[in-house]
Amino acid sequence: MEHEKLRTAITEIAADMAAETDRGRVATYIPELADVDPGQFGIAAVTADGTLLSAGDANTCFSIQSVSKVFTLTLALEALDDALWDRVGREPSGDPFNSIIQLEAEKGRPRNPFINAGAIAVTDAILDDDNAEEALDKILDFLRNVSGDNSIAIDDSVARSEAATGFRNYALANFMRSWSVIENAPDRALDVYFNHCAIAMSCRQLANAGRYLAWDGKLGPNAERLIPEQRARRINALMLTCGHYDGSGEFAFRVGLPGKSGVGGGILAIVPGQASIAVWSPGLNAVGNSKLGSLALERLAERMGWSVFARGEA
Amino acid sequence: MEHEKLRTAITEIAADMAAETDRGRVATYIPELADVDPGQFGIAAVTADGTLLSAGDANTCFSIQSVSKVFTLTLALEALDDALWDRVGREPSGDPFNSIIQLEAEKGRPRNPFINAGAIAVTDAILDDDNAEEALDKILDFLRNVSGDNSIAIDDSVARSEAATGFRNYALANFMRSWSVIENAPDRALDVYFNHCAIAMSCRQLANAGRYLAWDGKLGPNAERLIPEQRARRINALMLTCGHYDGSGEFAFRVGLPGKSGVGGGILAIVPGQASIAVWSPGLNAVGNSKLGSLALERLAERMGWSVFARGEA
Amino acid sequence: MEHEKLRTAITEIAADMAAETDRGRVATYIPELADVDPGQFGIAAVTADGTLLSAGDANTCFSIQSVSKVFTLTLALEALDDALWDRVGREPSGDPFNSIIQLEAEKGRPRNPFINAGAIAVTDAILDDDNAEEALDKILDFLRNVSGDNSIAIDDSVARSEAATGFRNYALANFMRSWSVIENAPDRALDVYFNHCAIAMSCRQLANAGRYLAWDGKLGPNAERLIPEQRARRINALMLTCGHYDGSGEFAFRVGLPGKSGVGGGILAIVPGQASIAVWSPGLNAVGNSKLGSLALERLAERMGWSVFARGEA
Amino acid sequence: MEHEKLRTAITEIAADMAAETDRGRVATYIPELADVDPGQFGIAAVTADGTLLSAGDANTCFSIQSVSKVFTLTLALEALDDALWDRVGREPSGDPFNSIIQLEAEKGRPRNPFINAGAIAVTDAILDDDNAEEALDKILDFLRNVSGDNSIAIDDSVARSEAATGFRNYALANFMRSWSVIENAPDRALDVYFNHCAIAMSCRQLANAGRYLAWDGKLGPNAERLIPEQRARRINALMLTCGHYDGSGEFAFRVGLPGKSGVGGGILAIVPGQASIAVWSPGLNAVGNSKLGSLALERLAERMGWSVFARGEA
Repeated sequence: MEHEKLRTAITEIAADMAAETDRGRVATYIPELADVDPGQFGIAAVTADGTLLSAGDANTCFSIQSVSKVFTLTLALEALDDALWDRVGREPSGDPFNSIIQLEAEKGRPRNPFINAGAIAVTDAILDDDNAEEALDKILDFLRNVSGDNSIAIDDSVARSEAATGFRNYALANFMRSWSVIENAPDRALDVYFNHCAIAMSCRQLANAGRYLAWDGKLGPNAERLIPEQRARRINALMLTCGHYDGSGEFAFRVGLPGKSGVGGGILAIVPGQASIAVWSPGLNAVGNSKLGSLALERLAERMGWSVFARGEA
Repeated sequence: MEHEKLRTAITEIAADMAAETDRGRVATYIPELADVDPGQFGIAAVTADGTLLSAGDANTCFSIQSVSKVFTLTLALEALDDALWDRVGREPSGDPFNSIIQLEAEKGRPRNPFINAGAIAVTDAILDDDNAEEALDKILDFLRNVSGDNSIAIDDSVARSEAATGFRNYALANFMRSWSVIENAPDRALDVYFNHCAIAMSCRQLANAGRYLAWDGKLGPNAERLIPEQRARRINALMLTCGHYDGSGEFAFRVGLPGKSGVGGGILAIVPGQASIAVWSPGLNAVGNSKLGSLALERLAERMGWSVFARGEA
Repeated sequence: MEHEKLRTAITEIAADMAAETDRGRVATYIPELADVDPGQFGIAAVTADGTLLSAGDANTCFSIQSVSKVFTLTLALEALDDALWDRVGREPSGDPFNSIIQLEAEKGRPRNPFINAGAIAVTDAILDDDNAEEALDKILDFLRNVSGDNSIAIDDSVARSEAATGFRNYALANFMRSWSVIENAPDRALDVYFNHCAIAMSCRQLANAGRYLAWDGKLGPNAERLIPEQRARRINALMLTCGHYDGSGEFAFRVGLPGKSGVGGGILAIVPGQASIAVWSPGLNAVGNSKLGSLALERLAERMGWSVFARGEA
Repeated sequence: MEHEKLRTAITEIAADMAAETDRGRVATYIPELADVDPGQFGIAAVTADGTLLSAGDANTCFSIQSVSKVFTLTLALEALDDALWDRVGREPSGDPFNSIIQLEAEKGRPRNPFINAGAIAVTDAILDDDNAEEALDKILDFLRNVSGDNSIAIDDSVARSEAATGFRNYALANFMRSWSVIENAPDRALDVYFNHCAIAMSCRQLANAGRYLAWDGKLGPNAERLIPEQRARRINALMLTCGHYDGSGEFAFRVGLPGKSGVGGGILAIVPGQASIAVWSPGLNAVGNSKLGSLALERLAERMGWSVFARGEA
């Protein structure tokens, strides 16, 4: 019955989103993103019993970009546990995703793991001895494992474009290196960073990949434990407070779910205990989050009573 | 059974907190706060059936200070609805509670309703024609109503001390007035602000007052509606992202509940659909939130499985 | 001969300025400034032998506004000597005249005596026991003395308008009071501040008033000493580095003379050992300094070889 | 007679400085600077007739570091004239030498040519098609020419150390590149930058090199013109307002001369029409300028009546 309600909601929302004319603007800083057709919209949700419901362009692969930061954070916590927090904070930044101001004011320690600086520091934390290839293998292995799909891969042309134009990220990495917040060569850390941001996934793959955050560290209520319960809960907390840059408060206010967006137009959202959801639409709003993706999640959460701030008995 | 578990948890935690030696430092900027005995700790929780459990100094009144901002926000939304957001933002600030930097960068519009500037703007929004007395009556009436206790009152000596030393708040109010973000005379808005921050309540009173946020706008699952469901949910979202100043991310990370702290050492925390909790201990941590209050909530949430970021089937 | 050259330069420049069509925009924040005819331009210069040459509207009184800060600084140094610098810095701010950001970053100590915050702190330093009347008498007496004109007075309507709308200055004063950088009641310090900024003078009066800065602390090469030589030199240094807010570097680059501008359109410029010059034209450039006043000084300095950065043998 | 007065002043000041025990702290960020003996002090001054007077360690070569920025600015103005100012501002920054905050607030355009970011942008402006070697030749040729000494050279080990540790400068360059404020590859611009900062000169060489700024663009009152008079004057203005980072106001206040300091402990100071002075002592004050160098210049200017803010008839 819940499945029916969810299926109907997803289908109707996907239809509404397909019909929307005000779709935001696609990212233009690299051709690979600029050329994506803004008319696309996909949505997928996995429920407790493992059912995956989807609608729209849910099988189309897109550049997950910053959504990848959730997975690298998971791996960095696996590697360093709480020692990671010596290098990266846990507070919303109040600044745009690529701001360097906060870094200077706080001695090179990024405010949280989801702004660019923080995500580069997190990437550095899973990189040993400048071995970029090994780190990328670790990231891909993890993603293939949690999504149950071995075909997930990096889009090389996206990675190359990022590396060729990512001067701001080079600035951030070198700035942090000057404070010894990152340990590897800035260029190596960025090599991994640009590549993991260039991973391509579909909504269906991404929704599956988020399951371990919906079920307290397991891929389902009865699956085996992947990460400690407390860690899953805390990653969700960080997604809610920091997952949408300086639009995080707005997302919490409107949608009320932990979520992480990427400039490719994807968003992963978690309903603890209930569902892992992925949406994708390439057009972005003013603060760089998917315009229709955010709207679709707001409507879905409203219809399903899925806000973490409500009674939970919708 | 749940009651028993909760009663035991509260009692044990209160005992642990009473025994703590590292209790933080009480606020010292006015004598009325500086003179409070740091050895105190109180906790109270109301559950869905209206049961109020408490332990420690749960009947002692303390200065609720910034916790009052939750209630003035509720009233301002009642008065202006979404038009309030023209004056105040909804994003975490990443700055200390009394920062003026963000105001200058963003044309006098405070980042959110819980930093001082935002709370002053919210207060201004419930003030008509400089009529401070009327506004204060409205606030006290609301608080007496939601807590079901007509004895709640303002501590005049606290209010006077705040007014005599609150130069920084005068600065914030005049700064916002220069941008026409507040409409009344800065001194009148501050008169109301200093007085509502000086309201004295006990943990038992405060826990009762928070019920409408735990049950989607009603004082209990079956009580009559006080505010719209969506509004209650959204106030919770703001408490989670912004309720502890630049310690909001940390509170979300550790406790995982919407909460609002005050410099008097009180914290109101909401478990949507399950409980409204008030804790109080006067010693503060480095970012100005109750040290033992935060710790007690972290332990309670852990024991009861109450994080909004967990599956909710503890 | 030099007199002839100067007379010709002044006359021609005044004629050019009268003919200029792009005159900048008059300040509009109070009606008394907004209503000033932008078509006016005056210039006056006093040379070593006391000759005063002038052209254009050199007898018309205008609101000297921030030019008054040079004179209050002189009085504050008379009162406190180097102890003044405990309260106010000596560095260019890199910020607009009324910025509060720097104050927060540097614990309420203004960067220099010529930004608004610094000038308020300087005013506070010549105010004893909240006695605003006495302080204003001291300021007027000094100005009448150095200009040799007892008719100089405050424009009350300007002072009242400033007080009624100067919320940003109230913010600055209260902010500094919160750090104990100012000692009197913020409202009293601002009372004096708004009044001394509202002093009305003509170019001829102002050029005379500046003589003590041109001749190392004396009203002429052979006059009796008014302030120590080193102090005069240092006030000139502050005028050069900080006298035009965030246009100070530009003024030094183009004109090459110590100068202090006011939002009323007046500028006092000093040629050490050679001349004291006052110009006035109400239209302002983008950073709030007189557009034609700056241009006239640039041309005059160029024609007379008066930059302090040139060989001085023009 | 003036020569005698100057000779005596220089000799006595050098003796006093040699005896000083509080000498500041040498820069420690690279071994080549950290290992310099802080006991050294040198001074040299060239007067209008070309006489060079010196005392102390005036023949010892030191790393001129940021003093080189005066010479690269001269070359960049030669190359681009006023078009340079599209890329770099002319205002004091109010920030430390290596701040990146201002860059973000002002779209990658450095506030002035003497902070690190500005100097890197200036270096980029004299670099064509990534040809670092050619640019360095141009800089060395100019320096050898103005100092009349063909032995001037780059200290390779200093340049290598700067390149190996200059992460902050890599951050600045990449940040500016992200805004297209610099045109060449960041690494190439920095290659030239690190190398010209690593030029080694003695006080005698440096005093000679500064002559063109003392005599309005000529190496002496009767020498042939090297750069336009106005340009020389304007470089002096920039040195006075911006030459000592966030200690520029202090230097203007105390010394009253255009000057440019370097972290190697050297300072070039200009007395327009009178002298070009170089001092050197490796220990730095809190804002990174030579402690004894600044003090020596303050005393020399006082004794010789050399402030640009005094009457000039000492």
